[in-house]
Amino acid sequence: MPRTARRGPRPIREREFHAWLARVLPAGRRGLLPMGDDAAALRPPRGTVAVVSTDSLVEGLHFLPGSPPRAIGHAAAAVSLSDVAAKGAVPGAIVLGLVLPPTTPRRWAQEVVRGAEAEAARCGAHVVGGDTKPGAVRSVGSTVVGWARPDRLAPRSGARPGDRLVTTGSVGRGGLAFERFRVGSRPRARALRELLEVRPRVREGRALAPFAHAMMDTSDGLAESCRLMAAASRVRLEVEEAALPLAAGLAALARSPDRRRAIAFFGGDYELLAAVPADRLDRAVRAVARAGGRLHWIGTVAAGRGAMLRTGRHTIPMPAPGWDPFGRPRFVICRSRARQFP
Amino acid sequence: MPRTARRGPRPIREREFHAWLARVLPAGRRGLLPMGDDAAALRPPRGTVAVVSTDSLVEGLHFLPGSPPRAIGHAAAAVSLSDVAAKGAVPGAIVLGLVLPPTTPRRWAQEVVRGAEAEAARCGAHVVGGDTKPGAVRSVGSTVVGWARPDRLAPRSGARPGDRLVTTGSVGRGGLAFERFRVGSRPRARALRELLEVRPRVREGRALAPFAHAMMDTSDGLAESCRLMAAASRVRLEVEEAALPLAAGLAALARSPDRRRAIAFFGGDYELLAAVPADRLDRAVRAVARAGGRLHWIGTVAAGRGAMLRTGRHTIPMPAPGWDPFGRPRFVICRSRARQFP
Repeated sequence: MPRTARRGPRPIREREFHAWLARVLPAGRRGLLPMGDDAAALRPPRGTVAVVSTDSLVEGLHFLPGSPPRAIGHAAAAVSLSDVAAKGAVPGAIVLGLVLPPTTPRRWAQEVVRGAEAEAARCGAHVVGGDTKPGAVRSVGSTVVGWARPDRLAPRSGARPGDRLVTTGSVGRGGLAFERFRVGSRPRARALRELLEVRPRVREGRALAPFAHAMMDTSDGLAESCRLMAAASRVRLEVEEAALPLAAGLAALARSPDRRRAIAFFGGDYELLAAVPADRLDRAVRAVARAGGRLHWIGTVAAGRGAMLRTGRHTIPMPAPGWDPFGRPRFVICRSRARQFP
Repeated sequence: MPRTARRGPRPIREREFHAWLARVLPAGRRGLLPMGDDAAALRPPRGTVAVVSTDSLVEGLHFLPGSPPRAIGHAAAAVSLSDVAAKGAVPGAIVLGLVLPPTTPRRWAQEVVRGAEAEAARCGAHVVGGDTKPGAVRSVGSTVVGWARPDRLAPRSGARPGDRLVTTGSVGRGGLAFERFRVGSRPRARALRELLEVRPRVREGRALAPFAHAMMDTSDGLAESCRLMAAASRVRLEVEEAALPLAAGLAALARSPDRRRAIAFFGGDYELLAAVPADRLDRAVRAVARAGGRLHWIGTVAAGRGAMLRTGRHTIPMPAPGWDPFGRPRFVICRSRARQFP
């Protein structure tokens, strides 16, 4: 790039950035291989299998150019940690895959890594390496390797008729944050930060896994997660609407049932949904409480197919999620503003 | 997107695409967790540690919109497999992170996955999962998890004075492919395919690891790899120019020594560079030959610092690599053409 581009914040240089990583990240001092080697090496705890998941956040879709980079790094780590949490795994390591325009300030990339490392460390893991490539649009990929007991993996496909459906928390947190962002009911910067404030349920997942037949996170919203678990398990999931622990503020914001459901099942919740045998429900509730969380009984598993919502008077199919990234877009967050499509 | 966009090839839909993955990929039938679950689970072979590395290919930098998607998938898997090969690891699994414009034909993404799976399978691994996000510019991330004996990891920092420097193959293969692409000395499509034809040295890496003090791949070119190994090991690496196994056709293309070196050390070779104790050199050569490869003795490790090239008459510092993705760009491959900067 021309020299004049250097007048602003110092742009990123791959090698210098990776040398900085090796200096500041704790894994650089403690790993089986030095940070910056071709690969990272991780010792599996005895009796465990590796649990791997990957996710990424893309500028314009999950964050804006002005979003705080530390929050972006935090969220990128958190959404992938949520996936290994859903298998009851202990997170071990994160590798980041950054795609950044060459003019990206060095500090921006450093803050992303600091955010990811802080979130990883909160969950007992560390950023152990990564890759940085130039590209026109920023994206932050995060791959987590965790460790779990193979007999406690609780696949999505494990739900059985008679199981109790439970969830770890606030249904519609993601939808509420997006709604506040969309209608501008609070300062834009704060609404954006809320969208990135993901707390993966790692401790709850570990506590719940020994009791669960099936488990998954609710990144696509509770309704879609129920549909996916029902399909994978070839069962019918019935959720009691009155039992849903709605995110604080949701009921006040949306008075009509349809509006409330649209927000509640929008997506981006990152709680856990599990199917637990009825005779283990009590123990599961206590185990999650000991882990500092709370388990809510929201429904049951029955023979049949599909995911249903019992609204009191009626039983209706679970509404579709609002967030369908590859579908007909209802909005595109681009550059410095949110454009809405009719 | 407007309905009219559907007239062309069928665009990608995330859930449908992931369902297709679960049907066609062998890991979907054999994994500890069903394909499409929140995470993949992998059983570590006894006595091994996990070796993890991530890499990505970005449209406009590593491939063009018209590049064959199967070759892109192949290359994305190959470049990350090369990193775990450099630690003597047996590749176990790959997770892909795709960022694709919503108008991307479904078939394009399927071909990328097929290419990655074919390359993974060739190396004894499988694509076990991934993530697909919309974004303005295509990128294909690949994270490999492999397994290695912890006493044979051969870090970059392990080279010792007296060691022999060896490499597995053709120096300048990447530079030659890029040069042919740049000057248009052969059909553009063929030159582009050559750039993506990466063959990770997995079998050679496993054969070499028990004998190597230090090992790494030459993705940044042999000169830069020598510089990195010298710096990490705090030694001086001396390479004999006459001993370099240049890529076929390189000497004929570039007559002047400077031009030849610029191409030879350009980057993108994906061979292995290793430091082997002198008394194990013979056994290392035989082990790599048994694995179907060939080991070339190209220099020695000495006390001191830096990476030097002995040209016969002189000893000069190793030339800088041509490929510095975040540096002042000498070229940008964008959209449908390569633009060159003076």
